[in-house]
Amino acid sequence: MINQYFLEMTKAPSVIRALSVYATERGKEIGYENVFDYSLGNPSVPVPEELTRAMDELLKEKTSSELHGYSPNPGNPESRKVTAAYLAKKYGIPYTMDHIFMTSGAAGALAHAFRCVVQEGDEILTFAPYFPEYQPYVNQTGATLKVVPANTETFQINFAAFEEMLNEKVQAVLINSPNNPSGIVYSEETIQKLADTLRAKEKEYGHEIFIISDEPYREIAFAGVEVPYVAKYYDNTLTCYSYSKSMSIPGERLGYVAANPTCKNAMDIVPMCCQISRGTGHNCPASMIQQAVARCIDKTSDLSVYETNMNILYKELVDLGFTVVKPGGTFYIFPKALEDDAKVFCEKAKKYDLILVPSDSFGVPGYFRMAYCVDTEKVERSVEALRRFVKEEYGR
Amino acid sequence: MINQYFLEMTKAPSVIRALSVYATERGKEIGYENVFDYSLGNPSVPVPEELTRAMDELLKEKTSSELHGYSPNPGNPESRKVTAAYLAKKYGIPYTMDHIFMTSGAAGALAHAFRCVVQEGDEILTFAPYFPEYQPYVNQTGATLKVVPANTETFQINFAAFEEMLNEKVQAVLINSPNNPSGIVYSEETIQKLADTLRAKEKEYGHEIFIISDEPYREIAFAGVEVPYVAKYYDNTLTCYSYSKSMSIPGERLGYVAANPTCKNAMDIVPMCCQISRGTGHNCPASMIQQAVARCIDKTSDLSVYETNMNILYKELVDLGFTVVKPGGTFYIFPKALEDDAKVFCEKAKKYDLILVPSDSFGVPGYFRMAYCVDTEKVERSVEALRRFVKEEYGR
Repeated sequence: MINQYFLEMTKAPSVIRALSVYATERGKEIGYENVFDYSLGNPSVPVPEELTRAMDELLKEKTSSELHGYSPNPGNPESRKVTAAYLAKKYGIPYTMDHIFMTSGAAGALAHAFRCVVQEGDEILTFAPYFPEYQPYVNQTGATLKVVPANTETFQINFAAFEEMLNEKVQAVLINSPNNPSGIVYSEETIQKLADTLRAKEKEYGHEIFIISDEPYREIAFAGVEVPYVAKYYDNTLTCYSYSKSMSIPGERLGYVAANPTCKNAMDIVPMCCQISRGTGHNCPASMIQQAVARCIDKTSDLSVYETNMNILYKELVDLGFTVVKPGGTFYIFPKALEDDAKVFCEKAKKYDLILVPSDSFGVPGYFRMAYCVDTEKVERSVEALRRFVKEEYGR
Repeated sequence: MINQYFLEMTKAPSVIRALSVYATERGKEIGYENVFDYSLGNPSVPVPEELTRAMDELLKEKTSSELHGYSPNPGNPESRKVTAAYLAKKYGIPYTMDHIFMTSGAAGALAHAFRCVVQEGDEILTFAPYFPEYQPYVNQTGATLKVVPANTETFQINFAAFEEMLNEKVQAVLINSPNNPSGIVYSEETIQKLADTLRAKEKEYGHEIFIISDEPYREIAFAGVEVPYVAKYYDNTLTCYSYSKSMSIPGERLGYVAANPTCKNAMDIVPMCCQISRGTGHNCPASMIQQAVARCIDKTSDLSVYETNMNILYKELVDLGFTVVKPGGTFYIFPKALEDDAKVFCEKAKKYDLILVPSDSFGVPGYFRMAYCVDTEKVERSVEALRRFVKEEYGR
């Protein structure tokens, strides 16, 4: 018999996907260049040319089985070595390949990290606003995701609410900085306070509480903003990474789990991920992609366009009177809507071919997300639409 | 706290992997060319040249986001269309892209297919000898895998034992033909009888029983052997495929689930797989690999070497007095050991640098598997070692 749980899930539409489909359909009517589609976080800049060159070279240099043969369970050994060396040098943490498990993007990394540290009935805490996919990611692990309400002043952590929600069942805290959807980067002070709080609670409860740090936007940080590397502040950290955004290869599905060498059971994490993988059907990202990325691991796409776009939108939103916290990174901005119901606000915006995502699924009502991974020229044209929208609908 | 279940799993060594590691280590001592390593099913022939050409062309022709951007959840639309058209033409079944879900190899396909049709507490039946990874694949779904004892005369299905084990909890039957490890192809008669039996039981129990057909070796069939396409015989069939063996790309992790258009909830299977994927962290195989394979879907590697190797080994094993069923496909052969304990037999073979896998983990004691995806020249040289082994250890 068909599994009823998954069958039911197919009937719950994704708001973001529905908006993206709408944008594509609308594009067929008026030309997609005229749809100001801020719905999806799909990188708009090309891959680093070094990556394309690496793929070309691999196709020429490697034998068929070297390039396309099985990776060992934890990933291509060279890729793991290069990743460990890169992280060790950049962050001064003595990672070796034994701490690196290659995954199918950040989604694959999170799926493994969760299963390493939770069991049926446990809780994972995360902080609003948060990436809505975290819910289905956690649901299939047997644990429950609980969401700490936002600090809407700064979108840093709301520690009062956090401490109230901490309890003995909490085995992991999931953070995402630079943050989707707010674009905020957690300050060193925030990370330090989070680490201190968790260390105290670990003692009190007599068990580890892991930080699972989802860092796909680590390289997209704007002028003057330093992204603190979480594992430097807290031993029991599993870092989940994806090359989707930094190299503009979301379709190639490459990321990793990096176990902090000082975390509990540090040398067991990668072997455990291998076992988890046997049940999820994950079994390694594509060999050729692993090898190509390893050859240019310190390169990124030209990410500067995202900052350019952010500055245009931020200035305009402020000028129009929006309440908005300035993003420190990512390609998202998360302003307060001009009426309480963000869904109504975003629905009205469609009239102006502005595709905005209402914030409800991100765990904060009354806001909206713009994913500005679009051409700057389009961002500039969208300003006019935004002005008309605000004036005609809200009289500003 | 670290998950104890997965931590325990890391302590159970894999027999096949241990043998493969031993073979590699031994190779460092005497030269790997002198180790007759029949441990692993890693294809030995190069990818089709059309595949390499397709990758070259894609790198030149496609924009960065066309080639490396997100695939929609069920996979690249062109890949799904091409797959459906290929299967429709080849097997006369009206598949459309709506029936095709692209996966990370057969492991990914099986992980999704299982979750589509079982729920906590259900049973899946499979037939010995069977691929040992089926156990961890099923364990994480909440269902239980039960193994029907082998028909060791022919390695077709042992129907008497099968019918005894059928019960209302059985929601799926997992088959693998051509079979790893026996190399046997289920006859049309076997498939027909299996289908008839299940149809009767579906009526009796009042719920569907799906066949999950694991078919990574479908294209590796030897002279005169026709591999029946299971979905032609039974409506409620989910076909799980991988390009790992047919195109020699096991490291690239590409396969699919094909839902028979006549199966129950046929149009829900792909959307359900998308939902399942959100929890397992699967999220599509690599975009570039999907697109490259779609351009040469009707091509295979030169698979003839496997038949050449099989004929050499089969003749020699028969000459040496082994009880062995002649394989109809794959790159495996599964003879009876010359003593009751296959582990002892395989341990003795190591002295002759013959790396053979004892059958216990395949669900049949007293046999051994040889994976003859190795160079024919090496197979020929191994014959001498096999003769010495049998003569010196067993006096034959």
